[in-house]
Amino acid sequence: MWGIELDRASEQPLKRQIYQKLKERIMSGQIKSNDALPSTRELSQFLGVSRNTVGESYDMLIAEGFVISRQGAPTRVADGLSITKTYTAPFVNALPKQELKADFRTGRPDLRQFPQFLWRQLLHKASEELPLALYGYTGPQGLPALRTEISEWLLRSRGVTVSSDDIFITAGATHALHLLADLLCENGKKVLMEDPCHSGMLQTFILKGCPVVPVPVDSQGMQTQGLPDGKDACAVYVTPSHQFPLGGILPASRRAALIRFARENDLYIIEDDYDSEFRYCGEPIAPLYTMDPQLVIYVGTFSKTLFPALRIGYVILPKPLHRQWSVLRTHTDVQNPPFEQAALADFLRMRKLDRHVQKMRRIYGHRRQVLMEALEDSFGSGWTAYGDAAGLHLAIDFPGKCFAETFQESCLQNGIYIKSVENHCMEKGRHQSKLLMGYGHLEPEEIRNGILILHDYLEAAAAHASRAGDDTKSI
Amino acid sequence: MWGIELDRASEQPLKRQIYQKLKERIMSGQIKSNDALPSTRELSQFLGVSRNTVGESYDMLIAEGFVISRQGAPTRVADGLSITKTYTAPFVNALPKQELKADFRTGRPDLRQFPQFLWRQLLHKASEELPLALYGYTGPQGLPALRTEISEWLLRSRGVTVSSDDIFITAGATHALHLLADLLCENGKKVLMEDPCHSGMLQTFILKGCPVVPVPVDSQGMQTQGLPDGKDACAVYVTPSHQFPLGGILPASRRAALIRFARENDLYIIEDDYDSEFRYCGEPIAPLYTMDPQLVIYVGTFSKTLFPALRIGYVILPKPLHRQWSVLRTHTDVQNPPFEQAALADFLRMRKLDRHVQKMRRIYGHRRQVLMEALEDSFGSGWTAYGDAAGLHLAIDFPGKCFAETFQESCLQNGIYIKSVENHCMEKGRHQSKLLMGYGHLEPEEIRNGILILHDYLEAAAAHASRAGDDTKSI
Repeated sequence: MWGIELDRASEQPLKRQIYQKLKERIMSGQIKSNDALPSTRELSQFLGVSRNTVGESYDMLIAEGFVISRQGAPTRVADGLSITKTYTAPFVNALPKQELKADFRTGRPDLRQFPQFLWRQLLHKASEELPLALYGYTGPQGLPALRTEISEWLLRSRGVTVSSDDIFITAGATHALHLLADLLCENGKKVLMEDPCHSGMLQTFILKGCPVVPVPVDSQGMQTQGLPDGKDACAVYVTPSHQFPLGGILPASRRAALIRFARENDLYIIEDDYDSEFRYCGEPIAPLYTMDPQLVIYVGTFSKTLFPALRIGYVILPKPLHRQWSVLRTHTDVQNPPFEQAALADFLRMRKLDRHVQKMRRIYGHRRQVLMEALEDSFGSGWTAYGDAAGLHLAIDFPGKCFAETFQESCLQNGIYIKSVENHCMEKGRHQSKLLMGYGHLEPEEIRNGILILHDYLEAAAAHASRAGDDTKSI
Repeated sequence: MWGIELDRASEQPLKRQIYQKLKERIMSGQIKSNDALPSTRELSQFLGVSRNTVGESYDMLIAEGFVISRQGAPTRVADGLSITKTYTAPFVNALPKQELKADFRTGRPDLRQFPQFLWRQLLHKASEELPLALYGYTGPQGLPALRTEISEWLLRSRGVTVSSDDIFITAGATHALHLLADLLCENGKKVLMEDPCHSGMLQTFILKGCPVVPVPVDSQGMQTQGLPDGKDACAVYVTPSHQFPLGGILPASRRAALIRFARENDLYIIEDDYDSEFRYCGEPIAPLYTMDPQLVIYVGTFSKTLFPALRIGYVILPKPLHRQWSVLRTHTDVQNPPFEQAALADFLRMRKLDRHVQKMRRIYGHRRQVLMEALEDSFGSGWTAYGDAAGLHLAIDFPGKCFAETFQESCLQNGIYIKSVENHCMEKGRHQSKLLMGYGHLEPEEIRNGILILHDYLEAAAAHASRAGDDTKSI
């Protein structure tokens, strides 16, 4: 009767199972409008459950309006309920994990060197000491203790003087750019961006519908002499300490030109300082921010110095943007969770970040050297390194070569993860001879092997191309 | 000489101090283009520091292009650097904390009841067991273990059958709506929203530039017979299990009508199930989602069941949206941090949420009763409760009264936090006699006191108004 089979081993209560089955039959039209349901006594006897159980399942159907109960009359199915249910096909999400023989991804710190044990201790301690109030809503700006420690870290590490009142915690640098796009880009106003730039950051603006205007980059960063008309623009996005991907340091004269340009056109400069901690010949570069804190929005992150999944970054905001940012953040994702913020504040206060950065600078500097030597061993003098000795990756120019759009894909099919600079270019064709090699996450042996594998693949591809009668140098 | 004073007690290295002072003087124009800097020997003797230290500070200036060094010639200041620096006024962020005598805010769970100790243990255990790979980028969908546990919790608690492949972790419900606005609202397409609805959620859509069309709500939720033309719309936002703020349950016939409407107009239904765990007379309401998983996007959160600062929620997405959501999330804030996700998965697996919700349902149900009794004691029969017995707040109708737009502000000035339903209305004037009273976070004694204080204030305000010769019932 009524097609109800109960599963007594299930964690789902019996009343819910009964309710569920009846509802399915009502929605599919098998039980029709105005049909009477059996009495609770009848159904409970049939199913061998208590009358209460059936009563509760009927109450659920009544509460949701599937059936209507009237004093002294049987419970009947309501009107206008039938909708034909469509079948949901099972979904297979399993992308086969590619086994990489050589992995030159950029922007990956070496997690194996991260002081995991210490971090867990601090996280535990921070969560033990976290006052109950911090489990509630605490506002969009972030923990005061963390903002204070960041302001002191900025002074120690980069000579930046900034009040913790101007620091706003974010869920990383991408999150900061996403919010800035919402904050600054109105009425189709444009964003000027370095070309090439990080394709992920470019996407963040494009997905917001911001029109992006490319400004060419050379070995010294953004070519400020080539800045377009700034009247329709709302912001310039730059990576002045270590241009991504080409690695240049924006010289002081271009910095001054950029600031004059921003002042004349009444727009903000977004400075993304994504990895300037890791400079191998000299001190970290002072942020552009220090030259005009009213105009420059500084974006910093701990994804590269600590670990990507931490999801903590920050922006330093000029005062006129504070209120609007707070409103926007409140209606975007409200705030960061408190545990990691408190642990990071301790990590900074104990000078553990200073020590970790110092250690990683040594390790990454050595790996960079190993990469350059491996390149020389395999490619002789047929390449040059681009940009400043900094960061977690190297831009390499192979003069005369041409790495086509399909290069990345064909490498990946051969177990090699590598991108050409062209992958990050808006205007194509100007950087076809350059490759990007991330080395931060690789042990020296992995770097050497990777270069051998890359070299062999490039040789084979070239031989194949010449056999095919293709006399260009495109790979 | 050169106006350089060093602070030997500072944590900032001497080389950075020297660099800083010189840079400031260059930028302010006190040292001009082409001026020669003193030799490193000269300056080091004057300052009483090693020649190396001065050399390193010069290297920093050279790296950033402030000065130019040529073999055999003095180091000179570069061209085109001067920009007049503007003064940054100190910012005072200190909002004086208002001491509240009565706090009827909505959507606040009682943090004092949260099993903090257990949570900290689980967080600690989860972080100890977290594999190193989860410190890196792990993709936008969220931890598989957590998604599996949520799918089982949804089956246990609401009878929802859903694959963990369709669940996407978010940083809470607001975050989910923010992303959905970006995902669905294109080319000026409209969102239909309940009126009244949560003003925060409304803001989330408005801040994205989505045109919002109000659909009136009665005691049974959205009035589907009043749905406008759906051709220009992309989505309908509803709270069918417990309408915010009026508390109605959307009856099955309106649910079916809504689904037919969505199918006809090819749009999605966003179902925000923000607090349906807390229903005091009967089982939680089954989500609208179960009636058509292809059309309904289900938004859930743990902010109300656990604690707001957790920042974990989720959406159940129809398959055609999976890819686009993933791209968008990657370029919005990348992913959630892993620690809370892993701890929450354990919390769910151990059935701790089931027990906590059960306990809180009892506590909140009692508080609701206390609130109703206190209202009766103070206001007699001059009020009625609106909506279903569920959630963390009550909508109260005081027939004949009129709570004006300024009501909230004048209450706050008297130490009472309370909102009228009008605060959440798009079209004003239809709900002026209704107040919203959050009770979840209040002890019975706080509820009783709060009602006494509110009653006295309303009496005083009415007396004041009648003395002023104002014969309307506006307060």
